Amino acid sequence: MITTIRISTSAHTALLDVTTQVERAVRLSGVASGVCHVFVPHTTAGVTLNENADPDVKRDILVTLDRLVPPHGDYAHAEGNSPAHVKASLMGSSLVIPIEDGRLVLGTWQGITFCEFDGPRQRSLIVNIVS
Amino acid sequence: MITTIRISTSAHTALLDVTTQVERAVRLSGVASGVCHVFVPHTTAGVTLNENADPDVKRDILVTLDRLVPPHGDYAHAEGNSPAHVKASLMGSSLVIPIEDGRLVLGTWQGITFCEFDGPRQRSLIVNIVS
Amino acid sequence: MITTIRISTSAHTALLDVTTQVERAVRLSGVASGVCHVFVPHTTAGVTLNENADPDVKRDILVTLDRLVPPHGDYAHAEGNSPAHVKASLMGSSLVIPIEDGRLVLGTWQGITFCEFDGPRQRSLIVNIVS
Repeated sequence: MITTIRISTSAHTALLDVTTQVERAVRLSGVASGVCHVFVPHTTAGVTLNENADPDVKRDILVTLDRLVPPHGDYAHAEGNSPAHVKASLMGSSLVIPIEDGRLVLGTWQGITFCEFDGPRQRSLIVNIVS
Repeated sequence: MITTIRISTSAHTALLDVTTQVERAVRLSGVASGVCHVFVPHTTAGVTLNENADPDVKRDILVTLDRLVPPHGDYAHAEGNSPAHVKASLMGSSLVIPIEDGRLVLGTWQGITFCEFDGPRQRSLIVNIVS
Repeated sequence: MITTIRISTSAHTALLDVTTQVERAVRLSGVASGVCHVFVPHTTAGVTLNENADPDVKRDILVTLDRLVPPHGDYAHAEGNSPAHVKASLMGSSLVIPIEDGRLVLGTWQGITFCEFDGPRQRSLIVNIVS
């Protein structure tokens, strides 16, 4: 079962917790035991699992990525968003999360985190649930 | 269904678009709806999804990775290819892409990108299609 | 089939080869052909595939990550372990490995590597095998 989640980002870079939306897709699928695939169909956004509690963790990840891949530097791509492309590949664009008893098997502090690196934009997240 | 795609790289580092080859494996599998797993069985190469249009994006990713993990530095591994090992782990070695209507569900600008970090070499990419 | 592997780490940061444990789970599952999902339910640890032979490769990866994301810097998270969160997202928390003839299809030098970035701790690794 494939579900597309729409995400509207409001900043140039942002980490957004989308766990609730993905969990809803799992619930609606009725799958009790299986695998949940999360996929980002963009090249300047990514997806990762990280802390869902203290928002400072998201801030620290963004600041560190900005230090490693700064807005200006040795970039040739004419659109000017090369840092977003690099960061997307560093975070990755697909995740696989186990499903047990109809729920995502996530650690206590784990949240599914959509990574916007070239917003604000309308984005999609594809959730593919396999029984 | 498991297919092995052979890749011959011609430079020390290079990002190669292999979308066409993977799409062919999906078509040949006859799977209409499912999941495509892409796997790199090497430790100095990786795989990522990124822009398939302007080749400058590939160039910018390689230049940035080279700045972050330069050819010479505090490396102990005697073979001298530690930067390639680090870059491989930063990019990752497996991808999962949804299949719908017999085709990969990729974003408009997304290409499956094989990452050579210690070439030139003969490489393999393993494609595993699950219905 | 879901198996949980317990891992006890003994250092603050460490890369541990867990291939033998994951291979055992594959063997016990009796699955001949399929996919092995490896999942880390933590936000300060990750999982990657890299060299299983020379331990210097593990050392070089840890030293490089420490240089890129040093222990002290512009971090706001009060727990003081922001570098571990960033490194976890750089390495990733899920892997997908093909299974053929009842065995993991790994390259000659590939080992499944658990990445501890905020130890020592008791950790879990979730292995989900799909036929």
